Amino acid sequence: MDISLEHKRHTLAHLLAYAVLKQFPYALPTIGPAIETGFYYDFDFRAGEALTDAHLKDIEKTMKKTLSSWKSFSHRVVTPDEARTVFEGNPYKTALIDDLEKAGETITLYSVGEGDRAFTDLCRGGHSEFPATDISTDAFALTTLAGAYWRGSEANTMLTRIYGIAFDTKEAFDTYRTQQEEAKKRDHRKIGVEMKLFTLSPLVGSGLPLLQPHGAIIRHELEKYLWDLHKNKEYLRVWTPHIAKEVLYETSGHAAKFGDELFRVSGKEEKFILKPMNCPHHMQIFADNQFSYRDMPVRYFEPATVYRDEKTGQLAGLTRVRAITQDDGHLFCRVSQIDAEVSTIVNIIKEFYKTMNLLDGYWVRLSVRGEGGQYIGEDAVWEKAESALEHAAQKQSLNYTRVEGEAAFYGPKLDFMFKDAIGREWQLATIQCDFNLPERFNLSFINELGEKERPVVIHRAISGSLERFMGVMIEHFAGNFPLWLAPDQIRIVPVSDLHNAYATLIHTELRAIGIRVSLDTSNESMGKKIRNAKKERLPYFVVVGDKEVAEKTVTLESRNGTSQNMTLNVLGNHLLAEIESKQIS
Amino acid sequence: MDISLEHKRHTLAHLLAYAVLKQFPYALPTIGPAIETGFYYDFDFRAGEALTDAHLKDIEKTMKKTLSSWKSFSHRVVTPDEARTVFEGNPYKTALIDDLEKAGETITLYSVGEGDRAFTDLCRGGHSEFPATDISTDAFALTTLAGAYWRGSEANTMLTRIYGIAFDTKEAFDTYRTQQEEAKKRDHRKIGVEMKLFTLSPLVGSGLPLLQPHGAIIRHELEKYLWDLHKNKEYLRVWTPHIAKEVLYETSGHAAKFGDELFRVSGKEEKFILKPMNCPHHMQIFADNQFSYRDMPVRYFEPATVYRDEKTGQLAGLTRVRAITQDDGHLFCRVSQIDAEVSTIVNIIKEFYKTMNLLDGYWVRLSVRGEGGQYIGEDAVWEKAESALEHAAQKQSLNYTRVEGEAAFYGPKLDFMFKDAIGREWQLATIQCDFNLPERFNLSFINELGEKERPVVIHRAISGSLERFMGVMIEHFAGNFPLWLAPDQIRIVPVSDLHNAYATLIHTELRAIGIRVSLDTSNESMGKKIRNAKKERLPYFVVVGDKEVAEKTVTLESRNGTSQNMTLNVLGNHLLAEIESKQIS
Repeated sequence: MDISLEHKRHTLAHLLAYAVLKQFPYALPTIGPAIETGFYYDFDFRAGEALTDAHLKDIEKTMKKTLSSWKSFSHRVVTPDEARTVFEGNPYKTALIDDLEKAGETITLYSVGEGDRAFTDLCRGGHSEFPATDISTDAFALTTLAGAYWRGSEANTMLTRIYGIAFDTKEAFDTYRTQQEEAKKRDHRKIGVEMKLFTLSPLVGSGLPLLQPHGAIIRHELEKYLWDLHKNKEYLRVWTPHIAKEVLYETSGHAAKFGDELFRVSGKEEKFILKPMNCPHHMQIFADNQFSYRDMPVRYFEPATVYRDEKTGQLAGLTRVRAITQDDGHLFCRVSQIDAEVSTIVNIIKEFYKTMNLLDGYWVRLSVRGEGGQYIGEDAVWEKAESALEHAAQKQSLNYTRVEGEAAFYGPKLDFMFKDAIGREWQLATIQCDFNLPERFNLSFINELGEKERPVVIHRAISGSLERFMGVMIEHFAGNFPLWLAPDQIRIVPVSDLHNAYATLIHTELRAIGIRVSLDTSNESMGKKIRNAKKERLPYFVVVGDKEVAEKTVTLESRNGTSQNMTLNVLGNHLLAEIESKQIS
Repeated sequence: MDISLEHKRHTLAHLLAYAVLKQFPYALPTIGPAIETGFYYDFDFRAGEALTDAHLKDIEKTMKKTLSSWKSFSHRVVTPDEARTVFEGNPYKTALIDDLEKAGETITLYSVGEGDRAFTDLCRGGHSEFPATDISTDAFALTTLAGAYWRGSEANTMLTRIYGIAFDTKEAFDTYRTQQEEAKKRDHRKIGVEMKLFTLSPLVGSGLPLLQPHGAIIRHELEKYLWDLHKNKEYLRVWTPHIAKEVLYETSGHAAKFGDELFRVSGKEEKFILKPMNCPHHMQIFADNQFSYRDMPVRYFEPATVYRDEKTGQLAGLTRVRAITQDDGHLFCRVSQIDAEVSTIVNIIKEFYKTMNLLDGYWVRLSVRGEGGQYIGEDAVWEKAESALEHAAQKQSLNYTRVEGEAAFYGPKLDFMFKDAIGREWQLATIQCDFNLPERFNLSFINELGEKERPVVIHRAISGSLERFMGVMIEHFAGNFPLWLAPDQIRIVPVSDLHNAYATLIHTELRAIGIRVSLDTSNESMGKKIRNAKKERLPYFVVVGDKEVAEKTVTLESRNGTSQNMTLNVLGNHLLAEIESKQIS
């Protein structure tokens, strides 16, 4: 977010505290930062005051009223003791002052309002200079109430957090609001239940979704498509187990990097780690060969499930999980081969995201070294790798931004950002050069001179994680998957029992050619049957009545409301062609 | 093994101890039982005596010489103190006597040989009555030396174990010997290296093979074939994570059953178990639906990896592993549907094993309840399930043996035993009824009366475990996989650089139709190139020289020595037809 917007949001946090304290003078303010889409402030309301949405409306009203007359933000530098006097009786602010004093930092106080009615806060600064002029009253709102522990620790007091959203303009604010409302309708957790895609079981645990048959179909179609995009490009599938000894991750460096996100596995005799990444396993597969320069590049592909111990409270649906299936791939190549390999991967990414209807407005971040960073690998190799990535990006006409200092310590990378149907941006695909793992695992191939040469590793993921990608796709398509991805592709609905025979014939014939077809011979009314098919978001349904039986035809009706009469034979080919082309519907 | 053979083997263990003590009077005998293919005896040779294979030859000679004059086996009952006197100075035998005394058991001594030269052993009995007559000197041999801890504990002294093999007849002995030699040649660990199928990495750990690209091809072909056999039979694929909370396995009963074979997973906030079975996960998928009798049976399919903590010392290659991928399936049905469902599964098993060339001489064990066993479920349901399994076995003309008392506590089952190419028997497929898990997870569907009805679960695995099955198949085919399973199907070998263009054309055309083809343009000699192809067990290779270039043909040579001239177009179709039919070559 740009600095000016961050300052506005930060300013609004102060204003929020001012308005709350006006209404609840005995509440204790704690902290209130700017965040991604707005701001929040945490209060200790102490006993007896349970806030409701009605209170939020009042507080917001006070904020807007105050804002119009809030010309400027006064501030002064104080000593720790002066600050303690100002916040006497507020243990939260006192603790913050103690920390600042210990760190030897300057303490500044900022005030909203005038005289007795002013609210003075402990703050580092970073605000709008002229709030009344800078901030539009139409571009912010208070949104939600939540509980939050002081300093994020369950051992501390539970505070009340008030969230607000804020943007530069009313237009940006409205766009965000609309997007949020649309996102709510598309929530993959809601659609997941309606379409019976996945299950969360308290006996299995949080962040460990189980795929119902419908969800498994989508996953298998995605996996199959991903493999289809790789198999003619000399990628080789491998398979690796889900655990490894600790020493593997000590060697790779992941033990230090992932720390307490690692799941530790204990057996009778040995200790293991549930893999947080597939890379170290793939390095072992490479290492067990003696490759020559003629064999390079070597390309491994494996959609494999890794495990990371995210906090229980942060887990949700398919997008925040502990079991993450990466459509992982590792290439081992020479520095001179990076350019061509990256181009191939970019082509795969473009084709995949075009099929997903996500190619409009995507952009790419090229992360390279920055001043003063700690990087592994020789300068000459870095330069070649960075320019190989940039060259591939140019050759592929990617809309890319070069960001200095954002490279991983082990190499430069390209991250792909895609906008979904309601304008939200998702970082999905990635291509990363790695000079570190080949070094740590002492990998080599024999070059033209008969010497050992160190390969470069390229990590690549197209969908990122299959779970998260499925979650994103459910919301992107609002569950209205293109035919090739739809779990249930078409439903046959006979008008009455008299039409069951013909309906069954259609069902059998479509099944025989591999269409995922269902037949609704239940006793529900026609209207209910059709509503069910629509609720389950089937791309197509076919109502079979007297006319269809007599004419040996079908009327293909789509969820979009189009309808088309055709013979049974044409129907099969029509569906197969749409599936084959992975057409967006 | 039959009792009489077990008695012979046990008798030979005594004879072995006699012969060893004759040559090494100060060695301390410990224990010596009959085992599956013969017998062993463990000795404490004390300092200084390192046995070699040459010693084994001598000892075997003594055994054979003694046997011919060993008319009968004398024995007497003694008191514990008398026994202690006989074994004075042997702490092992003394410990065994103490145990027998504590248990209040009768102590008997058995002697081989006469007078001073007799070897008397502490023994419960169970021998051949007339060794010289009963046991053929041509039907046994000493085979190997090994180390073994006293009472199997690493805390105790390491003893020297001498293994022998013994059979009823010379013919059986020779058959076993030949089979062993053949098995050694076919050892999947050896072939696995030659064909580059899998890798064992000390950094990853024992019993955790990683599949190299060639191994992954075989695995994917098997998985694909297994799914092909199920997908038109209303099976639905599901997907489940590899961990679950302990409570899942406490509910299922697996926590108690698997005990210390479970891998325990600890996270920051929660504890999990690395799944030892897929069943409990599949129960959760079923439980999250409200099925009616119209939906039954519900059939889930998932080839999924489970983990069991086998002892490090018992792990080997692909057949004894800690990561076990079951081609798992669970059916939920009514008791009245068991018969038909089992028939469908039997058909799948027959088709699968016919393709694997394993259908000759297979037999099936039908395990039913026995007297006095502890079983869960109502008698009437058991009777129906047992007769449904038996009825399906009869209808399918299975060569089955009904074994009373061998059922699991949770239901009756059918286990399928197959003989491989060198006559070894493997228990692979299984079909098991389960009345327990539906009860434990309180599963139900709504029946015709609108009431909740408990389904029966049928567990089924066709290949058993993909890792073990791959190991068995590597040895069954001796690495000479049928074309559809062969990782590298055909190699193009140009005679010289002049033929590279045409060789590349063949390579490109075969790749385009999905054949796994490789091109050998290395600088090796023709002879070496062909030897390499044969060593890597490629089903086919094609040598491209002047004649082929001129005539635009290829000569297809098989690893079996057949050869056939054809056009390039015919070659493609020829290979595709062989793959499609999964022909045994």
